[in-house]
Amino acid sequence: MAKLLGRSTYIFDRPPVIRSFAAAGGGKEGEGPLGERFDLLSPDNLYGADSWEQAEMKMQRLALKTALNKGGLRKGDLNILFAGDLLNQCTGSSYGLRPFMAPYLGVYGACSTMAETLLLASVFVDGGLAKAAGASTSSHFCSAERQYRYPLEYGSLRPPTAQWTATAAGAVILTAEGDCPRIEVRHACAGIIEDPGVKDANNMGAAMAPAAACLLRRYFRESATAPQDYSRIFTGDLGTVGSALLYQLLARDRLDISGMHDDCGLLLFDRARQDVHAGGSGAGCSAAVLCCHILPEMLAGRYEDVLFIATGALLSPTMVQQGESIPGIAHLVHFHLARSGKEGA
Amino acid sequence: MAKLLGRSTYIFDRPPVIRSFAAAGGGKEGEGPLGERFDLLSPDNLYGADSWEQAEMKMQRLALKTALNKGGLRKGDLNILFAGDLLNQCTGSSYGLRPFMAPYLGVYGACSTMAETLLLASVFVDGGLAKAAGASTSSHFCSAERQYRYPLEYGSLRPPTAQWTATAAGAVILTAEGDCPRIEVRHACAGIIEDPGVKDANNMGAAMAPAAACLLRRYFRESATAPQDYSRIFTGDLGTVGSALLYQLLARDRLDISGMHDDCGLLLFDRARQDVHAGGSGAGCSAAVLCCHILPEMLAGRYEDVLFIATGALLSPTMVQQGESIPGIAHLVHFHLARSGKEGA
Repeated sequence: MAKLLGRSTYIFDRPPVIRSFAAAGGGKEGEGPLGERFDLLSPDNLYGADSWEQAEMKMQRLALKTALNKGGLRKGDLNILFAGDLLNQCTGSSYGLRPFMAPYLGVYGACSTMAETLLLASVFVDGGLAKAAGASTSSHFCSAERQYRYPLEYGSLRPPTAQWTATAAGAVILTAEGDCPRIEVRHACAGIIEDPGVKDANNMGAAMAPAAACLLRRYFRESATAPQDYSRIFTGDLGTVGSALLYQLLARDRLDISGMHDDCGLLLFDRARQDVHAGGSGAGCSAAVLCCHILPEMLAGRYEDVLFIATGALLSPTMVQQGESIPGIAHLVHFHLARSGKEGA
Repeated sequence: MAKLLGRSTYIFDRPPVIRSFAAAGGGKEGEGPLGERFDLLSPDNLYGADSWEQAEMKMQRLALKTALNKGGLRKGDLNILFAGDLLNQCTGSSYGLRPFMAPYLGVYGACSTMAETLLLASVFVDGGLAKAAGASTSSHFCSAERQYRYPLEYGSLRPPTAQWTATAAGAVILTAEGDCPRIEVRHACAGIIEDPGVKDANNMGAAMAPAAACLLRRYFRESATAPQDYSRIFTGDLGTVGSALLYQLLARDRLDISGMHDDCGLLLFDRARQDVHAGGSGAGCSAAVLCCHILPEMLAGRYEDVLFIATGALLSPTMVQQGESIPGIAHLVHFHLARSGKEGA
């Protein structure tokens, strides 16, 4: 069973296995560099629904359903489902996943949700509390913009530091066992809220970078590992501004990950062509990039050990209106590609 | 370590111990039947802050700080903190608990939050992933009313089925060990979202009762226990409407808990005197009643085995405006009073 290292790093001795995964996206995501890798796309972003919120619910529902199908599981097989999203009261998840009739523990981690749900699902599978656990999240550009900033019809100008909330969902199913080659969750680390004092709702990268930097520093220390122990480090979603800040903050501790780092917000869209300013964001962004790119690349043998650090800005329009800053958080999951059965034992 | 029973009931073989707990409340709560038992009260509901949201943050922060102090712990001792609340983006928790600098996993379970955070904290402590874990939540009448229904200044009429959102916070610290007599978490059960189709945001009891009934039925089956194995069953917060519905739903399975059941929403306020209509509600209601009444009564030896079922209405004003119904959820924790050291081994 899992052991605690340091303050909040977990090493899984019976590593949970990624049984299956799926990603759903919208029109812009379909036109991006990963467009062909999505399981489901809706060019008009509506998924046949009547509102952006209903579309987000349906998108997340379809992503989870597809992940279950790909894993050869039925909804009754899920012992537990961890999910959350950016909508107020996390309705993309609670309303969207209602039909699965699965034991449900809702989380709120803003754009860090995919790592938070994976961490929790891993703890439950490793501890024998779930034979199959789901981790799921979503975001929708149109529902997020009107909730967090301005209605789309207002046509507000976006500054260069702004990121583009992805219309996307990702769902992952974890089980205790699986055939090789298989992706295992080896470590996870729960992050601490860091608040650098950023008050600009159009500069989320800056609000999140310190949380990612503190988490990485602490994770390397607590797990007694170093950047060179990993094939690739993915953050989501710091964008150009946050990624540059992350390198600067890590440099203070003589940590350099720049040559081995990708940001999910910079992988989902083609900035030169798609006008997303500082990159993509939204809980669905890192979730979809995980399911469209990171996990498939691992299964193809291109990466053996990957750190996935989903970053969240705990932005509240109400609190920003009251003059508060935007706290950031990040959680980490370490994926390992096990090529032979014995390795994971 | 914990074992899985049935679909999502957990039995803890090394039962986590309630190390300490604290409750904070507002003016109306201070005037209620449990008023003298609160650790902290703010008669003007503001806790010295400038806004209702800031007051809620401060109230939750003070509750957790008091719980830590009562347990002889410092903020650096917390390995993990589970928290959430009713405010959009759960800012009562994320902003409020920011100063603790603890590893933080945000949850969203509406008024079921106290049971959800206790369940998760118990899994982490039992599994050795935390030496000390926090579970915390809050709600505030004024911040909730303006977010979910109408601004207070509008003076809207409340129908008889309406419940009164408590201005209250509760925080519990769990550790792996503790002196006897001590309260242990013996079982927990994660609930399934049940949606009876209620569309009235002023009738949350009806929206939540089916989730509580389904959870109780399943818990008794999966844990192979029956109502008579427990000294008392507390729900929170079904109020008068939801409690009556719960009895009716359980009667279909010939389960009768009416003689051994209390609802936190009916304990916090005096309905004859305090004009709260169908009773109290809000994530802070069951949390405060747990910390002001249930746990102290157990330590006083009045109850040996208690079921605590926090119920949540996953109400979203946006979804209600779009014609959607209100899904309900409930999670369960079984507390046991261990009188001698060997019992918990």
